[in-house]
Amino acid sequence: MPKLRFEISISLDGYTSGPGQSVEQPLGAGGERLHEWVFPLAAWRAPHGLEGGEVNESSAVLERGLENLGATIMGRHMFGGHPGPWDPAHPWNGWWGGEPPFHRPVFVVTHHPRPPLVLGETTFTFVTDGIESALRQARAAAGRRDVALAGGADIGRQYLNAGLVDEMLLHQVPILLGGGERLFDGVADLGSLRLTGSVAAPGVTHLQFAR
Amino acid sequence: MPKLRFEISISLDGYTSGPGQSVEQPLGAGGERLHEWVFPLAAWRAPHGLEGGEVNESSAVLERGLENLGATIMGRHMFGGHPGPWDPAHPWNGWWGGEPPFHRPVFVVTHHPRPPLVLGETTFTFVTDGIESALRQARAAAGRRDVALAGGADIGRQYLNAGLVDEMLLHQVPILLGGGERLFDGVADLGSLRLTGSVAAPGVTHLQFAR
Repeated sequence: MPKLRFEISISLDGYTSGPGQSVEQPLGAGGERLHEWVFPLAAWRAPHGLEGGEVNESSAVLERGLENLGATIMGRHMFGGHPGPWDPAHPWNGWWGGEPPFHRPVFVVTHHPRPPLVLGETTFTFVTDGIESALRQARAAAGRRDVALAGGADIGRQYLNAGLVDEMLLHQVPILLGGGERLFDGVADLGSLRLTGSVAAPGVTHLQFAR
Repeated sequence: MPKLRFEISISLDGYTSGPGQSVEQPLGAGGERLHEWVFPLAAWRAPHGLEGGEVNESSAVLERGLENLGATIMGRHMFGGHPGPWDPAHPWNGWWGGEPPFHRPVFVVTHHPRPPLVLGETTFTFVTDGIESALRQARAAAGRRDVALAGGADIGRQYLNAGLVDEMLLHQVPILLGGGERLFDGVADLGSLRLTGSVAAPGVTHLQFAR
């Protein structure tokens, strides 16, 4: 059975973004520090069309996280842009430019309908009837491959609370953000997810959970 | 220079105790789950006068945490018992019985004066003039050896915010407590503490920080 795999970076004090999130500062104050471990890696640069980069203990973790994925689910906040209904006059088309790094179907969970958006090899489908519908559509698109749950925190919480996450990979960054959005606020327990391993790497500890 | 070494168990959602702490439930609801990784270990059982036990990836971490210690500092909550002034008629003498496992001087930071308490090889000295005084006294007692900061969260925060912690060892347990006392609430940053390594072990990930 293909899996739903949730992967997200989190601070030592449990935040997936810093305080004061806005269109100008989508990760909140200091939130970009959650991702500093990934940008130097060759394994991150390649799917973003960049050459070179480092290889370290995070590389295999990142590569494993990209393997065998047939579709991606994300929340409206992660897709980004203005809140509320989509504005056809000034369409927000994501953070990733004309060739997003997904190269697979992406399902954006939102309250606001919008026609599919094709950018390069990635098609964004906007799902307005909830997380279970998004998962059904993503599974259908992925076929025998797994579905990635890319975040952010709000949609992660929803899938965790629904018991629908098969694997969770937390990239825990040893910083304190002191505010922002906490991944586990409102999550009563991890259900049947168990820690299966952890990997020490420069600037990050990867915590692997599975059923 | 001898170090101040802070060691504490913490849940995935950042709590060092569960909700509803009381004399009857000193670690709060579910808080005892933070320590389940340690009890089976031979390295924990030996200093508690117990034979046998397991050896796993946590053993060396625990042994290293006990090496070269000359004194221990703890907060009043960790020493335990009733809140407020000490009651000479019904003295609370800690959780550990007549032979506490410290076998070294222990300095308890409290608002309420009390004469020193000798139990077996451990002398508890009650310090009422603050964390810096406790550290001075502990350093003097420890000589060339290090000082352990045993917790709980409140005193850990105080020493972190004062920039006095030289090494921090977090035993991160992959559970959600959903309430209780959060170690890092009110800690703005880790100062000069940096992640130096992490160790995967059954039921716990050990995160090591140093200057």
